[in-house]
Amino acid sequence: MTNQAAVGEPEANGQQLTANGHTPVRLAYLGPPGTFGEEAARRYAPEADLLPFPSHAAVAAAVESGLADLGVVAIENAINGSVAETLDILIHETTLQIQAEVVLPIEHNLVAKPGTRASDVKVIYSHTQALGQCRRFLERCFPKAQMEAALSTAEAVELALRRDGDAAAISTRRAAELYGAEILATGIGDTANNVTRFIVLGRGKPPSSGRDRTSIAFTFAEDRPGSLAGVLNAFAEANINCTKIESRPTKATFGEYVFLIDFEGHQDDPPIRAVLGRVRPLCADLKVFGSYPRF
Amino acid sequence: MTNQAAVGEPEANGQQLTANGHTPVRLAYLGPPGTFGEEAARRYAPEADLLPFPSHAAVAAAVESGLADLGVVAIENAINGSVAETLDILIHETTLQIQAEVVLPIEHNLVAKPGTRASDVKVIYSHTQALGQCRRFLERCFPKAQMEAALSTAEAVELALRRDGDAAAISTRRAAELYGAEILATGIGDTANNVTRFIVLGRGKPPSSGRDRTSIAFTFAEDRPGSLAGVLNAFAEANINCTKIESRPTKATFGEYVFLIDFEGHQDDPPIRAVLGRVRPLCADLKVFGSYPRF
Repeated sequence: MTNQAAVGEPEANGQQLTANGHTPVRLAYLGPPGTFGEEAARRYAPEADLLPFPSHAAVAAAVESGLADLGVVAIENAINGSVAETLDILIHETTLQIQAEVVLPIEHNLVAKPGTRASDVKVIYSHTQALGQCRRFLERCFPKAQMEAALSTAEAVELALRRDGDAAAISTRRAAELYGAEILATGIGDTANNVTRFIVLGRGKPPSSGRDRTSIAFTFAEDRPGSLAGVLNAFAEANINCTKIESRPTKATFGEYVFLIDFEGHQDDPPIRAVLGRVRPLCADLKVFGSYPRF
Repeated sequence: MTNQAAVGEPEANGQQLTANGHTPVRLAYLGPPGTFGEEAARRYAPEADLLPFPSHAAVAAAVESGLADLGVVAIENAINGSVAETLDILIHETTLQIQAEVVLPIEHNLVAKPGTRASDVKVIYSHTQALGQCRRFLERCFPKAQMEAALSTAEAVELALRRDGDAAAISTRRAAELYGAEILATGIGDTANNVTRFIVLGRGKPPSSGRDRTSIAFTFAEDRPGSLAGVLNAFAEANINCTKIESRPTKATFGEYVFLIDFEGHQDDPPIRAVLGRVRPLCADLKVFGSYPRF
């Protein structure tokens, strides 16, 4: 545990200490380097020590155990919707609080071993989410290519480079740079407005900023008409805008759900305190994931 | 659409032609053979001609174009939640109606080239969803093995068999049989109650059976407190039980959602007709995916 601060420093930066002498924040993210997760982490804290971990659960565990100060995980993509693994970690596995959110534009690139021509490409690697987000481009421009799944867009570049110039990968621009791949095409996603929302997990509770979002999850003791309507009515009557609603299986019984709501305001603001006080008795269980400044 | 009445009769006819001389139903599913999709299709219509297609979108297109009479697609897993691709096809891409649902118990097996010992296994292939559902088993029993993504559990078996006895795959029992792999361990999923719900897509609208479920999707013209509560109140006041609520990004603007509700009853039942009549004016758009017998 002593020397983990060195992990995830691909180009071993010069300054281990910040200007004021504090050690830099250790920021865990879903690696390897070159993923969108790394891009979000760099955007959130450019000076941080970035520590790659192999799964979202490992990122949360790193922060809980003190290996890292904060962790960045993806929670929602504009095309694919919620990241189920992250919601389940928030629901079942961690007491960490959301500290902040980062909204990252997602640009997909087709990259390959330098010298590869598009007409040579027979196999295209990527994370299944990225393959799905570029479906129309792939069908039009590479109708005969074989798609292959990778665990991350960065691993996809590694897999493509291992082959003899007949493969490509869909990845970030940075992964292409890190692994020495050439960019064959850029902006190949099916939607122009593609973004991913990341959250930053940590141990404290940020104070009210005056422009916050709060995320909660709740369950009901029995499945009856109107339970969820009752909760939403409480928010509507308090004129609080719910910005997102989602459901996840409880995993205990098929057909039973945990509901997740994001709404505007901070859990310490008096109107929010009041509505949470009204809602809590309607639920079997209610968990606040955090209140944090809206991006 | 002519011979749809024959579908869903598990113990009907014995061979290629039905008793009355009709050709068997052509049932599209997400291939290759050996996937859970094939198992669901076989369970729904054991006598059908099963046609594998490479994606859920291709299954829907096969039915729309007349290549197949019906198509089976996964819509929800007890652990992973909704299958986003299927929801998006129902929302954006097809006018097919849901004809039926099939709930399939999911059993994961560790399989490998015959003669492989567990201690030889250095690489484990599977679909990322299956890897996720067996996470605890893998961490405990194969802490040092490398996980590799495959496009399906069946492809995972092919990839594992191609290597020199140092690989395994997580797959169905049938995929192991089809590809000649040996089962090393069985029931390796983290949850005992794991099931996947599949829906059957087709062109007709099944009549009311007296014990149906209806699936709808809707959007709101403007994002204001209480819109969703208004819809849920209409169902609650009519004493109609909503069995599931879900949201998906509209893909047009980040933060705008399509809401999906499943509820008990058939769209042609008078009380359901009445509540849909009340709800429709509250929505910018409302689409009925179908009414079908509950499993």
